[in-house]
Amino acid sequence: MRNFLKIILFLSLFFSFSYAQKVYRLKMATTWTSTQSPLFDTALHMAKLAQELSNGELKIRVDASNKHKAPFGVLDMVKGGQYDLAHTASYYWKGKDIATLPFTSMPFGLTAPEQYAWFYEGGGLELMQKIYAKHKILSFPGGNTGVQMGGWFRKEIKSLDDLKGLKMRIPGFAGEIMAKLGVQVTNIAGGELYTSLERHTIDALEWVGPSMDINMGFHKVAPYYYTGWHEPASEMQFIVNKRVFDKLPKHLQIVLTSAMKLAAYDMYIQNYDMNATAWQKMKKEYPNIQVKTFPKKVMDAMKKANKELRAEMSAKSPEIKEVLDSQDAYMKKIREWSKMSDYLYLKDNI
Amino acid sequence: MRNFLKIILFLSLFFSFSYAQKVYRLKMATTWTSTQSPLFDTALHMAKLAQELSNGELKIRVDASNKHKAPFGVLDMVKGGQYDLAHTASYYWKGKDIATLPFTSMPFGLTAPEQYAWFYEGGGLELMQKIYAKHKILSFPGGNTGVQMGGWFRKEIKSLDDLKGLKMRIPGFAGEIMAKLGVQVTNIAGGELYTSLERHTIDALEWVGPSMDINMGFHKVAPYYYTGWHEPASEMQFIVNKRVFDKLPKHLQIVLTSAMKLAAYDMYIQNYDMNATAWQKMKKEYPNIQVKTFPKKVMDAMKKANKELRAEMSAKSPEIKEVLDSQDAYMKKIREWSKMSDYLYLKDNI
Repeated sequence: MRNFLKIILFLSLFFSFSYAQKVYRLKMATTWTSTQSPLFDTALHMAKLAQELSNGELKIRVDASNKHKAPFGVLDMVKGGQYDLAHTASYYWKGKDIATLPFTSMPFGLTAPEQYAWFYEGGGLELMQKIYAKHKILSFPGGNTGVQMGGWFRKEIKSLDDLKGLKMRIPGFAGEIMAKLGVQVTNIAGGELYTSLERHTIDALEWVGPSMDINMGFHKVAPYYYTGWHEPASEMQFIVNKRVFDKLPKHLQIVLTSAMKLAAYDMYIQNYDMNATAWQKMKKEYPNIQVKTFPKKVMDAMKKANKELRAEMSAKSPEIKEVLDSQDAYMKKIREWSKMSDYLYLKDNI
Repeated sequence: MRNFLKIILFLSLFFSFSYAQKVYRLKMATTWTSTQSPLFDTALHMAKLAQELSNGELKIRVDASNKHKAPFGVLDMVKGGQYDLAHTASYYWKGKDIATLPFTSMPFGLTAPEQYAWFYEGGGLELMQKIYAKHKILSFPGGNTGVQMGGWFRKEIKSLDDLKGLKMRIPGFAGEIMAKLGVQVTNIAGGELYTSLERHTIDALEWVGPSMDINMGFHKVAPYYYTGWHEPASEMQFIVNKRVFDKLPKHLQIVLTSAMKLAAYDMYIQNYDMNATAWQKMKKEYPNIQVKTFPKKVMDAMKKANKELRAEMSAKSPEIKEVLDSQDAYMKKIREWSKMSDYLYLKDNI
């Protein structure tokens, strides 16, 4: 009888434990500080969604860069296992692996809906996983900024000559293009940009778009706001340590990938609204701001420089060539439809 | 001892049952037949997502209209409890409640990203819930077609005179606008449209866009394909019986709303790709198809008729007035940004 009782007790405990929910706890680092909206918001939104969708089975702690102190170290931290995942952007890793560059946005490239279509229907996501596989990382779209503006300029750009010797803060691949056009490209930390522009240390700078530019105050000291060309659809990125992901139960893998996908789309829409709101406010307070597009000759020179730099990269890396070729082929198909639909519709309704 | 044993046994059973998962089964009806892609696909995609995200706790059976035989009866069936939810479109209910009309798309209205921003950031979703509350229904965005084309015409439209007496199949509110311009608006079932166009029973018709037009074959008998004006961003709709929704546990409510939201965004992106693919195929097989935009005078007359009809509706229903005013106010803010971003970017890159 004593033994029988022990068996029953054991069974009782066994059932209780086996049905009780195990909680999976993950740690996420962001490249952003906790005040960078809507970037950091998107990381929080994803974590909240994952927790709610899993009914508390998946819990993700989000650390902003104020905490972990390594905004551009998040890839290494996820690879090394200090963090399980991160919210960041793919083009930050071009120094480690040039083939990661095109998954954010390319000059004169796809727009946000076109690029999402490339990711999800045109083989883009599979290509991204292929590039990141050698880093033992899974990579997913993480939210789109929409078309980024071409930047704030103190003087109007009327010709190619106006760019020669112009001191401009414009980092990355776009900076390389501008350098080819004679621009003196400088690198200045975010916190010093406003003063640099105000005191003529620089003549122009590129940041993001109205939603993120407004708090920087550039519109108070540089009246020309140029339309975008270099980042038509910058897609943020979620990266996940592959070993950690593979160990999650199947349904939590689906919860995590769905939460990332939904948070990404939501950021695109949220930032679309934030840009419109911020622009309305800027224009009201500073009615002298002038929206300009670069003259055709300048644009043509940028396109030429872009083409040359892409050819150089493709010659050096067959991997980036594969990604760029895939985007080019997709663009040929999708842009024709964008023209017939959104472009021609907006043309008659602006 | 015997009593003690009984208590242990009872506890063991109690824990087993209380932790065992209850399965919630819902029934969904669609307005679409099972072959209508990507509409029916989106309903299936949502049901699959809900089941996977909930780890099988939420199971949704999807019935196409081939089965339930009442494509335009789904609102009544969800209200009456024969179905728990449905995938359909809000403008089908304008005969029952005129205020439901603007939640699909309005002529010369918001584009897809603008409209998603209105729904999720501009108060649109709250307004939609308010309108549907009296029907004891919850309503959610259900996937966007993007800009719908203006239709297939046998002859080119060069002036307003070319529209007078023109026999065209164009249903709903857009049909009312066309009627004001002298078009003889006819209503013909989908299955008879191709023959009617081929045999000159009608001179023109409007369907959706390349992805859904291609299988109808209109491009084989009418060479002029006009760009869109009347449905710039038709958003499909998920409706849910409010009583059923309220009875779901909180985490399954979040699973269901997230699955609907994600499936909706996905349809927008999927259909963007499908339109581009279908258009490429059509144009290759029938290179004589000509894409046209209506002349400015025709467009201006459409806009005038649209304005008049909207004023009439608003005068009759304070509810639709509230929705239209909300969209108008949002448009004022967001269109300016769409112009600076997507429009001016595409202008230099098509």
